[in-house]
Amino acid sequence: MKKNKIVPRTLKGFRDFLPEDMLIRQKVIDKIKVVFENHGFLPLETPTLEHLDILSGKYGEEGEKLIFKFTDQGNRDVAMRYDLTVPLSRVVAQYNEIQKPFKRYQIQPVWRADKPQKGRFREFYQCDVDIIGTKSLMADADILSVIYHSLIAIGFKEFKIRINHRSILNSILEYTDIPSEEIFSFCRILDKLDKVEKEKLKEEFIASGFSEKNIDTVYTVLGLNSDQNQNSLSDIKKTLGTTEEGQKAIEELSALLSILESMNIKPEFYELDFTLARGLDYYTGMVFETVVEKPKIGSITGGGRYDELIGMFASEDIPAVGTSLGLERIIEVVKELNLMEVQNCVTEVMICNFEDTFNSSVTLLSQMRNNGIATELYPESKKLAKQFKYADKMGIPYVIIQGKDELDKGSLQVKNMIDGEQAIIQSSEIISYIKEKLSKK
Amino acid sequence: MKKNKIVPRTLKGFRDFLPEDMLIRQKVIDKIKVVFENHGFLPLETPTLEHLDILSGKYGEEGEKLIFKFTDQGNRDVAMRYDLTVPLSRVVAQYNEIQKPFKRYQIQPVWRADKPQKGRFREFYQCDVDIIGTKSLMADADILSVIYHSLIAIGFKEFKIRINHRSILNSILEYTDIPSEEIFSFCRILDKLDKVEKEKLKEEFIASGFSEKNIDTVYTVLGLNSDQNQNSLSDIKKTLGTTEEGQKAIEELSALLSILESMNIKPEFYELDFTLARGLDYYTGMVFETVVEKPKIGSITGGGRYDELIGMFASEDIPAVGTSLGLERIIEVVKELNLMEVQNCVTEVMICNFEDTFNSSVTLLSQMRNNGIATELYPESKKLAKQFKYADKMGIPYVIIQGKDELDKGSLQVKNMIDGEQAIIQSSEIISYIKEKLSKK
Repeated sequence: MKKNKIVPRTLKGFRDFLPEDMLIRQKVIDKIKVVFENHGFLPLETPTLEHLDILSGKYGEEGEKLIFKFTDQGNRDVAMRYDLTVPLSRVVAQYNEIQKPFKRYQIQPVWRADKPQKGRFREFYQCDVDIIGTKSLMADADILSVIYHSLIAIGFKEFKIRINHRSILNSILEYTDIPSEEIFSFCRILDKLDKVEKEKLKEEFIASGFSEKNIDTVYTVLGLNSDQNQNSLSDIKKTLGTTEEGQKAIEELSALLSILESMNIKPEFYELDFTLARGLDYYTGMVFETVVEKPKIGSITGGGRYDELIGMFASEDIPAVGTSLGLERIIEVVKELNLMEVQNCVTEVMICNFEDTFNSSVTLLSQMRNNGIATELYPESKKLAKQFKYADKMGIPYVIIQGKDELDKGSLQVKNMIDGEQAIIQSSEIISYIKEKLSKK
Repeated sequence: MKKNKIVPRTLKGFRDFLPEDMLIRQKVIDKIKVVFENHGFLPLETPTLEHLDILSGKYGEEGEKLIFKFTDQGNRDVAMRYDLTVPLSRVVAQYNEIQKPFKRYQIQPVWRADKPQKGRFREFYQCDVDIIGTKSLMADADILSVIYHSLIAIGFKEFKIRINHRSILNSILEYTDIPSEEIFSFCRILDKLDKVEKEKLKEEFIASGFSEKNIDTVYTVLGLNSDQNQNSLSDIKKTLGTTEEGQKAIEELSALLSILESMNIKPEFYELDFTLARGLDYYTGMVFETVVEKPKIGSITGGGRYDELIGMFASEDIPAVGTSLGLERIIEVVKELNLMEVQNCVTEVMICNFEDTFNSSVTLLSQMRNNGIATELYPESKKLAKQFKYADKMGIPYVIIQGKDELDKGSLQVKNMIDGEQAIIQSSEIISYIKEKLSKK
């Protein structure tokens, strides 16, 4: 029955999460979920595979190429989940019974046939929160509150949520005389401001057909000619406030800031940034992203208002606002800055295995577990040194020895594997002893 | 920008899990995870896509056809996760740093291009626990303990874990004179005993080339000629105990039963069943499955010992034992028998939205949330009736009214949406009031 060995290996851009990784991932996800539910968001999951036409044409030219797609056994064109926003939009259009406003969260992997590189994978998790069915700015503020409280709950000390409004960008076009259909290419270039030097970016604008005069005006309005960007509402009121779109954006941003203040979200954690564009074409109102400076890892959340996307599936436009929390980058930061105490073991006690006391050890094992203490019995009656070595390597904090001598005396030996402390305990007291020790950790 | 509407729909055999479903699924998974970790199992996740050769040739002729496979953008033959056992085997062979015994759990979806029918899906979750690297029967018993405690934790009142040993089946062949290479086709027919009437099954054995004399012997040994199957070790000792394989199996089963007894697993929840075959070819020792009678849903767990599978990836055989908990069927039973109290809402309090008290309501919202009370502010200042209708449909238990009158008096109106009770509470006391009410639920 033996054949040639198959080399054990994973596909490029795909990862196994071994227990050590999983424990930190689960801890981060658990913290996030508590915040999501505290804000009244309900969980949703959608299938890994969708009909191709559901996903196609939603992610721009570049995104389209990255969709994992194939023809299935039934000759259907299918595609793997690429994000969580489009499936949500389909769901909202598909089920009439969904009450609106619909506040949902979704934590699932997505797939993109991207070139794998450091920190970029073909399979990665997204955590999304969205509010469907209301244009109220309260919903936009709620999304920002979720971002803020999630990051604080995980242990972030420094981050900045950048906020902008698509109408600010539209009004810049209105204020200059750039045709409004140029908005997407304008935004895509502006989006590079984080990575490209301002003067170089100006060259790129001009090379893409924007006039030098117009781009000069843009630079003046946004304060890009000086060191200090003009990011207060009063700064741009004089320029963009003279346009219809600009006035609307300024009013909405001002109302949003007032809600954030009432929510007691600390002002050092968010800022207006009129240069923030966000790549995706479907945003129609507020856009936001979160950045951290240490480590330099780019944006760890991104989102905004998209009042027209769901209309692609439904008989009417349904307003929506939401954000995606980039779990992979968040975990990178958690690891790098040691934001969470992570254990790499769930077992609290290991009982050593002796042939002649085996039955009693099994009974003790089940008693410990029934009392909520995560316990293992070493499966074989190997040399004690070998059993201890396993407990040590696994990071199990307590080891119990119940050999023939101990059993005869009705006692147990307990060793703390971290500080080496040893104690002899009456069998009847072992559970309360361990519980007390564990509660002190 | 508007195009033709895309009809919102899912692929056959794939499901959306709307919040009501998700809340019950998460609750079941949470209960199971607590038991897994209490038994010292550590979490693992493996990628959705694997190189095709990793999965190919592991699931028998029938299974092979059901693998979702395609050629990716890089011209690689890839396949979607079909179960959690083969990826685990690859992982164990791939990472030298994994300590053994390795106790891992894994809860992830798998995909099978099966004909969709009631209760059978193309995408479904599996929950697996496995112990790698020991032949000790303690490991087999630990797996049975996990099954038992998981089902009890979920609320199951009745179930039966059936236990058999592959060597019992081998020894039946030895005891008759059926050639040992017939074991797989023998098992596959015997496996149908649940569904096919005994006499009909006899005909199927004979049609498949087994002699009537041999099958008669099999039927006598297993007690299939009488109403009462012979499922005690003493029953078969006289027959199969005379063969080498039979004697080994009887000894191991006897030792296993003794461990289960020391573990205080109640005997009404498990039984030996010498007719239990389990379809998969890779089992080498104990096999087990769990069945429930109400509702008639087939097996809800299945597993066994597979000491040779990992050797297909590694330079040596590595012993292993484990089980899969069929999450989908377990959830079916939970729903049908109402085993869990399920809420379909996470929000505990909704604050009504009034234009003239909006800012105060936002501040109250954030105070409630900061005190761990899941709270929503209705996003728009619509008519009160409409806001109440939303709270009612969503199942939110408490609604707070803080209009101009109440704000002036420093008080709030609170309505219990379940019993209709209304109260007027001082603003400063609202958090302790709600906390007390919620703790009584």
